[in-house]
Formats: sequence, C-alpha cells, structure tokens
Amino acid sequence: MGSFGEMHANLVTRSDEVSIEKECNRSAIEFAVKDLLLGLGEDINREGIRKTPFRVAKAFSEGTRGYRQNVKDIIEGALFPESGLDTNKNGHGGGVGGLVIVRDIDLYSYCESCLLPFQIKCHIGYVPSSQRVVGLSKLPRVAEAFAKRLQEPQRLADEICSSLHQEIRPEGVAIILQCTHIPFPRDSNHKGWVKILVSSGLGVFENKNDEIWSDLFSLLKFRGIDKDKVGVLKCWCPSSKIEASDYSPIMVNAVSSIIKSLGEDPRRKELVETPSRFLKWLMNFQCVSNIDVEMNGYGDSFCNTNGEVKIYSEVSIPFWSQCEHHLLPFYGVVHIGYFLLERCDPVGKSLLQSIVHFYGFKLQVQERLTKQIAETVSQLVGGNVIVVVEASHTCMISRGIEKFGSNTATIAVLGSFSTDLEARTKFLESIPSATSFEGN
Amino acid sequence: MGSFGEMHANLVTRSDEVSIEKECNRSAIEFAVKDLLLGLGEDINREGIRKTPFRVAKAFSEGTRGYRQNVKDIIEGALFPESGLDTNKNGHGGGVGGLVIVRDIDLYSYCESCLLPFQIKCHIGYVPSSQRVVGLSKLPRVAEAFAKRLQEPQRLADEICSSLHQEIRPEGVAIILQCTHIPFPRDSNHKGWVKILVSSGLGVFENKNDEIWSDLFSLLKFRGIDKDKVGVLKCWCPSSKIEASDYSPIMVNAVSSIIKSLGEDPRRKELVETPSRFLKWLMNFQCVSNIDVEMNGYGDSFCNTNGEVKIYSEVSIPFWSQCEHHLLPFYGVVHIGYFLLERCDPVGKSLLQSIVHFYGFKLQVQERLTKQIAETVSQLVGGNVIVVVEASHTCMISRGIEKFGSNTATIAVLGSFSTDLEARTKFLESIPSATSFEGN
Repeated sequence: MGSFGEMHANLVTRSDEVSIEKECNRSAIEFAVKDLLLGLGEDINREGIRKTPFRVAKAFSEGTRGYRQNVKDIIEGALFPESGLDTNKNGHGGGVGGLVIVRDIDLYSYCESCLLPFQIKCHIGYVPSSQRVVGLSKLPRVAEAFAKRLQEPQRLADEICSSLHQEIRPEGVAIILQCTHIPFPRDSNHKGWVKILVSSGLGVFENKNDEIWSDLFSLLKFRGIDKDKVGVLKCWCPSSKIEASDYSPIMVNAVSSIIKSLGEDPRRKELVETPSRFLKWLMNFQCVSNIDVEMNGYGDSFCNTNGEVKIYSEVSIPFWSQCEHHLLPFYGVVHIGYFLLERCDPVGKSLLQSIVHFYGFKLQVQERLTKQIAETVSQLVGGNVIVVVEASHTCMISRGIEKFGSNTATIAVLGSFSTDLEARTKFLESIPSATSFEGN
Repeated sequence: MGSFGEMHANLVTRSDEVSIEKECNRSAIEFAVKDLLLGLGEDINREGIRKTPFRVAKAFSEGTRGYRQNVKDIIEGALFPESGLDTNKNGHGGGVGGLVIVRDIDLYSYCESCLLPFQIKCHIGYVPSSQRVVGLSKLPRVAEAFAKRLQEPQRLADEICSSLHQEIRPEGVAIILQCTHIPFPRDSNHKGWVKILVSSGLGVFENKNDEIWSDLFSLLKFRGIDKDKVGVLKCWCPSSKIEASDYSPIMVNAVSSIIKSLGEDPRRKELVETPSRFLKWLMNFQCVSNIDVEMNGYGDSFCNTNGEVKIYSEVSIPFWSQCEHHLLPFYGVVHIGYFLLERCDPVGKSLLQSIVHFYGFKLQVQERLTKQIAETVSQLVGGNVIVVVEASHTCMISRGIEKFGSNTATIAVLGSFSTDLEARTKFLESIPSATSFEGN
C-alpha cells in the first residue's frame, strides 16, 4: 500500500465526510425498490412482496451502518496500560512487542461493483507499543465498521489497517482477508465462487518481506492461507466479465438512487457502472410464470402404468435464487428423487437442471421453490417424487440476526414418498454433506 | 415434554411477567461487581479493572436481553401466505406440510446453575400448515430471545418450541440443541467439555417415535447428531459436582443481587444455589501475586552456561482464565518452547503446567498471561523462550460483537528467539491445529 501518511490522510477525510454528512435515506430506497420490482414484472401489491421495499431499505441500512460509525468512538476507552517485558531482557511481549492476533472473524460486506454481499474471513495482527494494549473485541468491531459499507477487498483491508494503526498507535498492524464472491449465472469465466486473498500492513508490517510476516503466517497456517497467493486482483467481481444489456433507465436510476441514499456518491469512478452491474444480476430473476415454453417437447415422457420401486435420483444440482422478501441472493443445491414407472425413461439431468433454473431464476421463497420443482417433476414421472433444497440465505447472514454458519433445508414429497418412510430415508441418506454447497 | 396446553400456559405467564415487570438494573449490578472484585482481593481502582463493573453490567444486560423481548413482536408481520401442493395430489410441500429446517444456528446462553455462558448449536424444524410460512430469519431470532436468559438446555428447547408453535401455528415444531459447557477446574468428574443433546417437539413432533423425526434426523446426519443420544440430563452443569466452600456473605449477596437485577427471582429453586456455584468458579481467580511459593524447590534448575540449539517444547497445555475486563472466562492452550543450556535438565511438564495455572487462575488479559509465563520460564532455562497462547474469549462471543468462530493468539519471545527467525518458525510450525482447544 502507499505511504502511511498519505493513505491515512485520504481515509480520514473520506470517513469523516461520510459520518457527518449523511444518514441512510430509507424512504428514497423504498421508492427505488418499487421501481425495481415493477421492472422485474412483479405485482408490487402481492402479499409476499408488499413489504419488500420496507425490508430492503432496512437491510441496506443495517448492512451499511459502517458509514455512520466512528472508529475513534469504538477504540476510545479500550486502550489498557500493560507493561512489556523487563527492559533489561532481550525480547518482546505484553504491552511492548509480541504479536497479538485475532483470527477467523466472519464478516459480510457489499461489493461496490455489483451491490451483492460478499463474505470475508478476516485475520488481524498487531504489535503493541508504549505499554498499551487494546481490548480484543475492538479489533473485530473496527473491521466490521469498514465491512458494513460498499467495499472492494483491497480497500477494505487498507481501511481497517490504517484506522487501527491510527487509533491504537502500535508498532504495526497487519490485515489478511479471505474474500468470497457469489458467481454470476451464465458467467463462462467463473465456474465457481470467486475467492481472493488480500493483505495490508503498516508500521513493522510495512515491508511484506519482513520476518514479522513469517510469524503471522505461521500462526495462520491452518486457515488455508498461503502467503504466496496474497495478491491484488483488479476487477474481482464477476459482474465485470459479463456483457451488459440495455436496461430500463428507470431501473438504472433506481439503483443510483439507492447508492446515493446509502451516503455514497454514484459518480465515484468505482460506482459509475454499479447500477448496470447490479441489474445484470437482478434481471435474471424476472417474473416469468409459464414453464411450458421451457418444457416444450419433454412432456411426452409422462406415463401412468404401475411401476417398480428403484429410486432414481439427481443430487446436488446447483441453483441461484433471489429472496423475494429482501432482494438478496439465496443459493445452494437441489436433490431430486423419484420412482420411475415401467416403460418410462429416466428424466435427463439437463431437463432437471432446466426445471431447477426455471424456478430458481425469479423472486422466490425456498418453500415455494421446493414445491414447484416437485410438482413439475411429478408431471414427468407419474407422481412419486421427493425434492430437498439446501440453501444459504444471504438475508440471514448479511443483516439482522447474522447467523453465519446457518443454512436451510426444505422438503416436498409427492405420491408414495409421502407414505413410504423407508424410501424417504434411503433417499435422504444418499444426499452428500451439506457443506459442499457453501461459498467457504 | 408435558402436554402442550399446560406447558404453553406456564411459559406465557413467565415471559409476560418478565417482559412487563423488569428492566435490567445496571447500577445494582455495578455495585455487586465491585463487591466481587474486592472479595477477590483486587484493587478496584487499578486501571485494567476500574471500568470492569460498568462493562460487566453492560455484558449481562446484553447477554440477557431476551427477558425484554417479546416473541409475538418478532413473528408478527413475518407470516407469509404460501400455497401448498395441489389438494388433489397426495403429498406435502410449500405452505402445507413438508419439513422446513434451519440448521447450525450458533447461540450463547447463560447457565442458570453457575452464571457462566454456555454454547449452543441449535437446529429448528417445523411443518407449515394453513398455507402459511414464516420468514426464515425469525426462527433464529426467536431462539435467540430465549437463549439470552438464564437457562438450562431442556427448558431452553421447550421454550423455543412452545413459543414457535404458539405464534406460527404450524402442524408441528421440533428443536434440537447441542449444548457445551466449560469444564470447571479441579473437577474430577468432568475431564473435558460437558456436552449434551436435548430435543423438544410439539404437534406432529409430539411423539418421538413418529416418522417425521426420522426425516429430521436424516437431514441433520452430518452434524454429529445421533438420535439415540438425545436425552435429558439432570444437573448437566459441572459446578454441581464440586464441593462448595464457605463463601463471604457479601459476595453471595452480590451474586444474588446480579440475578435479581436481571429480572430473575433468586429464590426460584433452580437459582437458590447459583451464587455459591458461581463463586466456586470465581474464587479460582483470586488475586495472588507471588509465584515463589509454587515454584519453591524448582528454582535451582536455573543455569547460565553457553548451550546448544535443540528446541525443547511443551505444546497444548490447557488453561483457564478470567478476563479482567468482563469477568468472563477465556480458555485455551499454551505452547512453550525453549533452548536448554548445557548441563541443564529439561523443565518437567508438571512444572510448566503449574506455571501456566498460576498465571491463568487470576483476573487476566491474554497479553499479560503470555508475557508472565515467558518471564517465569525464562528464569528456569536461562533466557531463551518462546510462548504462544491460543484462546477463545467468551467476552467476544457471548456479548456485543458475537464473532463465534474467532479466537486469539499471542506471542512473547525472549533471548535468541527474538532474533532467530528459523527457530521461531520451527517452533510455530510444530503447534498443532488451533481447533483442538475449542469447546465445539
């Protein structure tokens, strides 16, 4: 990163401006969300989304509360006198020297390129000086204050680093972030989650080749962190790799209005393209109510003779969807099991994927998604179907209750699966470990 | 559990009383904490603990905010109409039938037996009815409202269950909790963390042998949950197994006063013994400033000849300590490495353990603990020492920032370890995976 003085001056200006200048304008966000819902072809009076503008505004406000937090207030009163090692000894520890590391801090931030939340595993190290240590919980608090803004990984690392260095005045601070971004549908450049590792250092950590970095990496070795992989990646957000379409000016303005309401300047160069990049994501979830078009030519595999009892299954079909309550992604895997009646062919994997995508790519709730997939597959196989959807909901993690590890499973059963415990159990136990669908 | 009606009536009374009647009395807690600090032999004006009464009162208030939360308010407005499967089909899904499960919800609660926090992995399942589903994030929110009280695992499960059943009015609700309690020092009955698994069910989950429980367990199979191990354990808290001493009436009254200030009745039968059980824990951390007594007879292993370079080490020595800022446990492992000078014997494991325990068993901060162990070991081996402490701080998890997975590492280095990178790296890389010291 740049010289400390220079960086530091920039940051102070930026964060002071923001904290004094602006409160999140929730009613403007509500208006903008209504425009977005209309642009998706939704009836904004239908029960499930009637209060969505209110909820989205609240989620954005909570998710960007960092703009209204002051690091000085967080640290103040939490610097404690702590003697160092005896000065006649050669060594470091306590309040003078000796690394202090808080590891594995789970954070969520909003990608400034596309407005989607991204996940962070944050590790903070600092070396105390002047017989003074900081209360440990202040380190994640400061990290969170910067994460709860529109961000980009390297800047997030630099801002946490500078701000801690300024307020604690230690010998040095180091930040390592493991960031994970949801892949965009139909992105041929990224097959899976986009992961990058960034770092930032000041004081004794200014030089990346210094021995102190080796000590830090030794203590993070079990976190899957490889120091040779730390790097700055320009344009990590997958939205930048997908061709933009022409989007409705009303929708583009709506997204700009949201960015402005959060206290950001939509003309800042990193944010100029953000409305169209957000719409690249959002327009995947337009209201389309007729699956017959996509199913055309498949319907004749339906049959209704009596059959035998082998369970056919397709597990771990990935899906993307968008929570209709908060306009935030939920994603995961679908598992489908069915009995195939005699003289029928099994349903091809690609057709099952099409069905999953058809119902995933709309504003949804997981319970409905599960039911709709079950009903549609049922038409193809004669009525005996079990569907399990496993998902992580960013609305549960990036705002409010913030339960990072939690995830959700839903089931729908049709025909004999609703009465045959043995068949259900056999299918359920064939599902691979749920962790496989998670971003981290 | 008991019949639903009866249970339900009890709970409503209890939670209504509490939410209407009492706000947490923080100034009374501050007074009580001063008495406890004096009882530990501390100088309540020393810098590190001067504001501890304030911080403890705040932590207790945040940690028991569930008493002031109303489940009706949480659920209200988050019940969404959602059609079920076509009625002419045989099956369940959507808003009528079909399991909905939120898994792996991390919670923290306070043990009503000893006032220490305990850890919970919570899994909630329910079966929707009446074409109605609940917003998924409300399930962890309700669980949290009951966790943030003085609790006991089975009652916690029953309260979450009853309350969701009442407010959502589904076909049924099931709760499974994996609870983990910190072991007490010098408890010959419990060598490690106390873990129990409890469950509660209403509606279609009323009968533990019903098929619906099999479906639920099938979907939790990767969580290390064995349905045969679900049980009610009386007196799970390890404090009950340790002999009580006579404690100062002032300190006993102080703890009673804290319980009362939280809005609980210290005369409730489960709470009558709580003050002395809390003191069983707390009195381990009395202010004792002279290690010479414990070191007596060991001092003569000191030597100061020039030596060779083999690193001796003792890793993963467990310790307990008590954060002096919040009066909450922090615990973990200490790793000690040293060069042994010629003609010296290695320091025995039991002596290193004694040193770790001596400095652990007081009101502490991790940085100081690390430094004190390094300085003391240094006297025994001639000056070349490295000490790493890895710890989980319940003050970082059970209150405020609530970063569940995070943990802290601190280092002190003395003599040649402060200049010899190769030796440091060799030692640091010999430390086993940090996860081994965690409760879960």
